[in-house]
Amino acid sequence: MADVKIEPMNRQYVLAKRPAGALQEGDFSWVESPTPPVGPGQALVRSIYLSLDPANRGWINDVPTYRPPVGLGEPMAGFVIGQVVASNRDDLAVGDLVEGDGGWQDYAIHGPDSAIYKLPPGDDLVARMSVRGVTGLTAYWGLLDIGEPKAGETVLVSAAAGAVGSIVGQIAKIKGCHVVGVAGTDEKCQWIVDELGFDKAINYKTENVMKALGQHCPDGIDVYFDNVGGEVLQAALFRMNQGGRMVCCGVVSQYDTATPAPGPHGLPGLLVVRRLRMEGFIVMDYADRRDQADRDLAGWVADGRLKYKVDIIDGLENAPKALIGLLHGENTGKRMIRVSGETV
Amino acid sequence: MADVKIEPMNRQYVLAKRPAGALQEGDFSWVESPTPPVGPGQALVRSIYLSLDPANRGWINDVPTYRPPVGLGEPMAGFVIGQVVASNRDDLAVGDLVEGDGGWQDYAIHGPDSAIYKLPPGDDLVARMSVRGVTGLTAYWGLLDIGEPKAGETVLVSAAAGAVGSIVGQIAKIKGCHVVGVAGTDEKCQWIVDELGFDKAINYKTENVMKALGQHCPDGIDVYFDNVGGEVLQAALFRMNQGGRMVCCGVVSQYDTATPAPGPHGLPGLLVVRRLRMEGFIVMDYADRRDQADRDLAGWVADGRLKYKVDIIDGLENAPKALIGLLHGENTGKRMIRVSGETV
Repeated sequence: MADVKIEPMNRQYVLAKRPAGALQEGDFSWVESPTPPVGPGQALVRSIYLSLDPANRGWINDVPTYRPPVGLGEPMAGFVIGQVVASNRDDLAVGDLVEGDGGWQDYAIHGPDSAIYKLPPGDDLVARMSVRGVTGLTAYWGLLDIGEPKAGETVLVSAAAGAVGSIVGQIAKIKGCHVVGVAGTDEKCQWIVDELGFDKAINYKTENVMKALGQHCPDGIDVYFDNVGGEVLQAALFRMNQGGRMVCCGVVSQYDTATPAPGPHGLPGLLVVRRLRMEGFIVMDYADRRDQADRDLAGWVADGRLKYKVDIIDGLENAPKALIGLLHGENTGKRMIRVSGETV
Repeated sequence: MADVKIEPMNRQYVLAKRPAGALQEGDFSWVESPTPPVGPGQALVRSIYLSLDPANRGWINDVPTYRPPVGLGEPMAGFVIGQVVASNRDDLAVGDLVEGDGGWQDYAIHGPDSAIYKLPPGDDLVARMSVRGVTGLTAYWGLLDIGEPKAGETVLVSAAAGAVGSIVGQIAKIKGCHVVGVAGTDEKCQWIVDELGFDKAINYKTENVMKALGQHCPDGIDVYFDNVGGEVLQAALFRMNQGGRMVCCGVVSQYDTATPAPGPHGLPGLLVVRRLRMEGFIVMDYADRRDQADRDLAGWVADGRLKYKVDIIDGLENAPKALIGLLHGENTGKRMIRVSGETV
């Protein structure tokens, strides 16, 4: 593996300007610059798959989230699975498969402080990018550690045909819950019920969500896994049972706008009278417990109880368009960019 | 104690109409009707102290809270400490001191299903109505069980000169926290700092709360004990530290209006990026753990670390006016009505 071809030029998307409202392709610029040399203590990683996530949109506003905003002129940040193509790091050898924040580019330098996670040789990279990676872990920890569902309880999931939501619902079924999903097309609704085993689905674009919740959650909602905020959160809040838990995972209805809506009506009053808990989390906080989650997720995939769908788009050049589409709900399952072939 | 004088007539305030916006005295009607006879399995309790609480306002809207709404023409509900004056219940004897929902009236019937709690003979009823009763228990469980403050953390309390808030802040000090209170007059602010030992106070009517929080909570806020909702909650939310807890106890800024404000901006997004927990509770849920709380509260009062102030208004006839005043922040410490003398 010592002789790996490294392209002389590194293709990148950098942040050209901060979006004014909805994200536009022109908010990014395509740049080609010499592939950086590998300094002491550094490794060079070639991107194979680039993850697209609704949270990406939050990283480019001019306010810190759980990370500092991407700077103007800097490569767009993004979660990447790639392969080490040159290394001056003791812990990484050429050929190693790794995941970490590689950004929207062909090659990324990872110094000693870069949070990077080594994958086993021959790993299934597509599964690692979806059900067994950050996506699956987000579903796993959010549902089980924050939501604490008990068998027989009702679990509602929004963006239920999305990468995280589709896994949340299936884990809730494995745990013996009544599971209802909210999605934006009839096809998505059919998929989560027919293929994934959700009990019921609600198309929020064509149905009255409050009314549909009354019908499909006859015993109320015990756990709401919220990927969207906005109107679905509002409706769910009014249907929560006493002692219910609302897992705040994402706010996709609010990311792509310059004028986010105020919080839902009934807050915080309903939290008091119904003793509700509303709690946010970030999957990175569970890094030290990854093995446990990974064993469960791999086991459920192996025995066929946990299915996943991926939506792979070829070519780094398509990243801006693909992210915009994701924010508009184009995808079913986990959307990612294939930046290059899987092996050197 | 067998021969106790029972007045032939029972004076009551009944709910005359549901408030349209801010509560008016005319929303209640004064009624005098024969004191009810005591049936099998029932006891008759004469009211001594009637508690006035912001939550009372929520009970008379036409929507259930943690209890059904008070019906039109029914006696207004209210927490009462009283004395048994006639009993056909095995567990209650004439002369017993009790607390429970007695309502705005001289005499209440308590059947076998009525949640009533017997107090020790010779109990300090004023302390029991405030620091050692529902008020103190609300502060205790909300702060310690939901807020989980650790020594060295910053705790913010709103309605800090109120019955609950004034106790929350003192318990937080006992637990070694940096404690900041928000109140509505300079006198209240001075009282909580000079007398109760809060570290800092903010007058939300004359100061910019966001700016004052930056100044008085230099390390951010770890626990926010929210009695008010609205603008103070909004400001606190933006100052919360990663992993912070927001204890939702009440929403006094929103009770007395027909047009409650929407929830704060930044929800649920900020809960996600800062991993915040926002959780409501009702003190009744802790009934089975009362002894533990009572031991702590009594100990702190006895050793002088926990002070309390009461605001006693004489005469049942003043209840509507006193509740309206409470909702407008007139009181410092625990407001209650003295309905009759302490002993039969």
